[in-house]
Amino acid sequence: MALIVQKFGGTSVGDPERIKHVARRIAAVKAAGHQVVVVVSAMGHTTDELIELMGKVTDYASPREVDMLLSTGEQVSIALVTMALQAQGVPALSMTGAQAGMRTEPVHSRARIVDIHTDRLKQVLADDYIPVVAGFQGVTYSGEICTLGRGGSDTTAVAIAAALRADECEIYTDVSGVYTTDPRVVTDARLLTEISYDEMLELASLGAQVLHPRSVEYAKQYRLNLRVRSTFNEGAGTLVKGVQDLENQTPVRGVAADLNQAKVALMDVPDQPGVAARLFSALSEHGVNVDMITQAVRGEQKNDIGFTVAKSELDQAVQVTEEVGRQVGASGVVQDPDVAKVSIVGSGMVNHAGIAARMFQALADGNINIQMIATSEIKVSAIISRNQAQQALRLIHNAFHLAGAAPAVEAISSEVKF
Amino acid sequence: MALIVQKFGGTSVGDPERIKHVARRIAAVKAAGHQVVVVVSAMGHTTDELIELMGKVTDYASPREVDMLLSTGEQVSIALVTMALQAQGVPALSMTGAQAGMRTEPVHSRARIVDIHTDRLKQVLADDYIPVVAGFQGVTYSGEICTLGRGGSDTTAVAIAAALRADECEIYTDVSGVYTTDPRVVTDARLLTEISYDEMLELASLGAQVLHPRSVEYAKQYRLNLRVRSTFNEGAGTLVKGVQDLENQTPVRGVAADLNQAKVALMDVPDQPGVAARLFSALSEHGVNVDMITQAVRGEQKNDIGFTVAKSELDQAVQVTEEVGRQVGASGVVQDPDVAKVSIVGSGMVNHAGIAARMFQALADGNINIQMIATSEIKVSAIISRNQAQQALRLIHNAFHLAGAAPAVEAISSEVKF
Repeated sequence: MALIVQKFGGTSVGDPERIKHVARRIAAVKAAGHQVVVVVSAMGHTTDELIELMGKVTDYASPREVDMLLSTGEQVSIALVTMALQAQGVPALSMTGAQAGMRTEPVHSRARIVDIHTDRLKQVLADDYIPVVAGFQGVTYSGEICTLGRGGSDTTAVAIAAALRADECEIYTDVSGVYTTDPRVVTDARLLTEISYDEMLELASLGAQVLHPRSVEYAKQYRLNLRVRSTFNEGAGTLVKGVQDLENQTPVRGVAADLNQAKVALMDVPDQPGVAARLFSALSEHGVNVDMITQAVRGEQKNDIGFTVAKSELDQAVQVTEEVGRQVGASGVVQDPDVAKVSIVGSGMVNHAGIAARMFQALADGNINIQMIATSEIKVSAIISRNQAQQALRLIHNAFHLAGAAPAVEAISSEVKF
Repeated sequence: MALIVQKFGGTSVGDPERIKHVARRIAAVKAAGHQVVVVVSAMGHTTDELIELMGKVTDYASPREVDMLLSTGEQVSIALVTMALQAQGVPALSMTGAQAGMRTEPVHSRARIVDIHTDRLKQVLADDYIPVVAGFQGVTYSGEICTLGRGGSDTTAVAIAAALRADECEIYTDVSGVYTTDPRVVTDARLLTEISYDEMLELASLGAQVLHPRSVEYAKQYRLNLRVRSTFNEGAGTLVKGVQDLENQTPVRGVAADLNQAKVALMDVPDQPGVAARLFSALSEHGVNVDMITQAVRGEQKNDIGFTVAKSELDQAVQVTEEVGRQVGASGVVQDPDVAKVSIVGSGMVNHAGIAARMFQALADGNINIQMIATSEIKVSAIISRNQAQQALRLIHNAFHLAGAAPAVEAISSEVKF
C-alpha cells in the first residue's frame, strides 16, 4: 500500500464530465489498495471569470480581497470532486486550505507555506476517507486567506506529499509528461520517462510549462518522487527525481526555447570596477528581472555589457540602462526586442566535453547566428533571432539524437498554448 | 453616531452595477458619521448556478459538501462589495462567516448559530473599517463550514446586530417594505411604517416573503429594531419592533394569502380519546408538516378531523390518514388540493370584538364559502377555494379600510414571484 498525492489542474476538472472522469481515476487507485490525497485547482476558466467580474467592480483591488475572491474557485472544485467520488461510493471529504492545515506567511497573492498541520489530514486518511484539498490557498495563523500565486496548486500538492512522507506526488495535466523538446514544434520529440530535479528546474524556467519551478524546488528539497502524467490517457508520464536515482544519465536530457526574451546591451563601458554592480542594482531597484548576463571583453579598456529581460520589461530596462550609461560614460545602449533563448539541459553534460560545441555547430549548420552565450553545470543557453527559434530547436534536437520512435504530437491536447 | 447593521440580499448585489450602487449607499451612511457592519448574500443567481453544476456531477450530494459548495457564493459577494467600497475610498474588510466569529452547531444545510465571537468584528470597527460579512454561513468549533438554511443571511445580520448591540438592523431587499397586503394583488395596498415582531412573524409565515421568520424571532428575542427597506429607492421602509413600542395599535395590521395549502379531512371519527393524537403522531412520523387543524363536533358521537398541509405533502398526508382511518373505524378521507388560507393579523385585535365577524362578513359578501377557521390572539385564518383567494384579499383589505392613498404597486420590483 502506497500513499499517493494526486493533483488535478484546472483543465482536468474543467467541466462536470471531466470531474466525473477524474473521480473514476482516483477511485481506481483507491480500489487498488492505495491511500490517496487529492489536490485540485479551480475549474478551467473560473479564475478568469472571477477576475473579469472584479474588473467590472473596480479598477484596483487590494490583494487581500483578490485572495478572498479567487480562493472560492478551488473551494467549488473540492466540493464537486468530493461529490463525484461519493457518487461512486468512495468515501471522501473536501478540505479548504485552512481545514487541511496549510499555514502561510501573511502575504497576499504570493504567500509561501510556513507549516502544514497534518493532524486532520492524517485523521481523515486513518478513517479511510480520501481528503480532497483545495490547492493554491492557505491561511495565516490569524485566519487570513492567502493564495500561493502562480503554480500554487502544484506547490500545495508537493508540500502535502512532503509533510505526509508520501511515496509519490502525481501532477495530472493535459500533456502526457515532459518531452525532450516542445512536441508542437519538433514532431518527433520523445516523452521522457525520467528527469532530475535540476534538469526539470532548468526546463521549467525555460518555458516548458508543465511544472512550476517552486513545486520542483520543494520536491528536490524533500527528495520527493514527482510524476507528471496526463489526466486523459493511462501513460506513466515522467518521473522527476534525484539525479543520483536516475536510471540513465544522458549528457542532454532536453532542448527548450524561451520566446519571451529581449536583449539590451550597454556599449563601450569604461573598464573600471563597480559598473556592472551599479547597472544591475539600478535595474533591480526598478523592478526589472534580468535573465542572462554576458560581458564581452574588448581591447582599449572598454567592455560591452549585455543582458536579456522579459519582453514586457524591455522599455523600462532600456530607460534605466541609458541613465546608468550616461553616468558611467558609456557610448550608448542597443536593444533587440526580437530574440529567443534556446538551451540544452542535462545533468550529464558536466562530464562530457564538447557538448556545447556540438550545440553551436548545429546552429552554425543552420546558418543561425549566436548573439549571447551563457552556461551552467547542466545547461548551455544561446540567444538567437526569435524567427529562427523553431528551426534551432529541430537542429539541436537532431544533433543530440533525442528523437523518439513515433511522432509525439498526438499526445498533446489542443489546449496548450505556444 | 449609531451602529447600523445593513444586510443586502441576492438581488441587491445581483451584478457589478448593483454592487457599486450598494457600495455608494453604504458609503453615504458611513459619511453621515455612523458605524456600519454589512452582511451580504450570494449574487443573484449564483446559488442556483452552483446547484445546477452540482446536479451535473451527482444525483445526491452530502449536506457537508453542499455547504462547502454554496458557501462560496457569499464569499464572492463580500470580496466584490469590499472592493467596490475601497474603490470609493472607504476602508472596508471582507470577512467569511468563520472570520466574523459565527459559530454554529455541527449541522449542515440548516445550522443554528450557537455563538458569535465578536472580538475581530469589534477590532475592525474600532480601526474604522467597514466589516463586510458573508451571510448564511458559519463554522463549527472544529472548523466545519455550515450554512444556516433558508433566510440565513437575514439571520446572520440580526444575530450580529444583537451581539454588537446595534441601534438598528436594516434588511435591504427589492420591495419597499411590508405592506398591508400583497400589492401585486391589491393595488392600493399601503406600505406599513411599523409592525410588531409577532405581527411580522404571522405575516412572514403566511407567505409575505419579505423576512424569514427565524430572523424576526431572533430580533424579538433581543428587542432589536429591524427595518425592511428597498435597495432601489430612498424610502424609510417598515420598522419591525416590540408591540409596546408601536406608535399606533390597529386591530388589523395586514391581510395575507397562502396559496400553498391543501386540505385533508378524516370523516366520522368515533368520539373517543386519543384519535387525534394518533393521527397527528403518525403524520409527524412520516414527515408531514400540518398547518391548520380543526375538529368539528357532530351528533351521534362522531367527529370530523380536518387539517391542511403544503400541497407537496398532500399525497403522503392522505395515505397516512387513510391508514389511521382504517384503524380507528372512520368512514373515509376527503381531500381538496385547491384551497388557500387567507388571514388577518393584528396585535390589537384581541381587544376588539367583532374583528373575526367583520372578516367573515366580507367573505360572505363576495359569496366565498369558508371551509375551515382557526384563530390565535393576533390572527384569524380561513380556508377557502384557491381560485377565490385574490378576490378575498381585496374584500378583506377593503373591509378593514387598509388602503393607502396611492397605488403601491409601482414600488414593487418585477423580480418578486407570486
